[in-house]
Amino acid sequence: METLRVRTTAHEEMADVTAEIQGIIRARAWKNGAMLVFCPHTTGAVTINEGADPDVVRDMLVNLRGLIPRTGDYRHAEGNSDAHIKCSLVGPSVLVPVEAGRLALGTWQKIYFCEFDGPRERSLWLTWLPGE
Amino acid sequence: METLRVRTTAHEEMADVTAEIQGIIRARAWKNGAMLVFCPHTTGAVTINEGADPDVVRDMLVNLRGLIPRTGDYRHAEGNSDAHIKCSLVGPSVLVPVEAGRLALGTWQKIYFCEFDGPRERSLWLTWLPGE
Amino acid sequence: METLRVRTTAHEEMADVTAEIQGIIRARAWKNGAMLVFCPHTTGAVTINEGADPDVVRDMLVNLRGLIPRTGDYRHAEGNSDAHIKCSLVGPSVLVPVEAGRLALGTWQKIYFCEFDGPRERSLWLTWLPGE
Repeated sequence: METLRVRTTAHEEMADVTAEIQGIIRARAWKNGAMLVFCPHTTGAVTINEGADPDVVRDMLVNLRGLIPRTGDYRHAEGNSDAHIKCSLVGPSVLVPVEAGRLALGTWQKIYFCEFDGPRERSLWLTWLPGE
Repeated sequence: METLRVRTTAHEEMADVTAEIQGIIRARAWKNGAMLVFCPHTTGAVTINEGADPDVVRDMLVNLRGLIPRTGDYRHAEGNSDAHIKCSLVGPSVLVPVEAGRLALGTWQKIYFCEFDGPRERSLWLTWLPGE
Repeated sequence: METLRVRTTAHEEMADVTAEIQGIIRARAWKNGAMLVFCPHTTGAVTINEGADPDVVRDMLVNLRGLIPRTGDYRHAEGNSDAHIKCSLVGPSVLVPVEAGRLALGTWQKIYFCEFDGPRERSLWLTWLPGE
């Protein structure tokens, strides 16, 4: 298992981690299979979405906040229940195909760590699953 | 990696791709492990849900549109921010167990490609992960 | 494939299944790889979230119900469309890294079966994917 550090700089943020993950795959010479990108935090998540226009990320964060606002019918004393809920809706991991040593992503896809309760020092755990 | 083509015919649609995936597993004689069904698009997604009553799909698409409407506080110039957001909420892939060459699905489960910005010609990428 | 039985006791519930899954990994002496925890039902889901404060689960269930209420613009005759929709938003499975025979989870993470249409007798299917 490899660990990737991510330092977020805002309360909510989507940090593109694609190049760092590709770099680890290259360094370890993994060829064909799938890469599990797992978030060990409960107020962050991992997703794949468009990387060309930064407004896609902006629209996602703004509208998720509209759906699950920071204040509401919450009892969790830490005051970050919205982040926990977003975490389960977006999901704790992605599994990305790898072919000939390269992340098999669509033209516009990037892998994002989603920070919902930052800024913080975060980690992602990478587990390699070999194909045939 | 195998590619499955999906031609969608509506702006929003859930296309049942279960039989095509099972056909590829049979053709390749994969036996025990898991099948990664990955969507390389950022305005589509993959999910598993009921296949018996078409109203389940209808209710899902109608209510997702209610949660994340087509117009709203969006800046992304292509006008399909709703589709990008749904894509991350539903998720870019499913991982389905395969046992003795058959997709291990529950009685009512089907695998769906979710089109959120169609109609389009789409692809799904299939990666085989062997079990023990 | 191993089967884990879960008996839910409420209409909506998040049941912590972490210890049972860890027990199966130990019994089978699986060491390094990833565990696919798959829900074969279409009105339940699997997620990972905080296990320390039960109010996190309470806040999640209450607020998901706010987003996707039990009654609304639904045509599915069984009256549980809300559960089907939540199922696709939360997702049908999680894939958890395993290192040296232990589930690699963050400090606060637990694996939950999410019941959205209980109480029922449910199953989870576990598929072992070996690492390198």
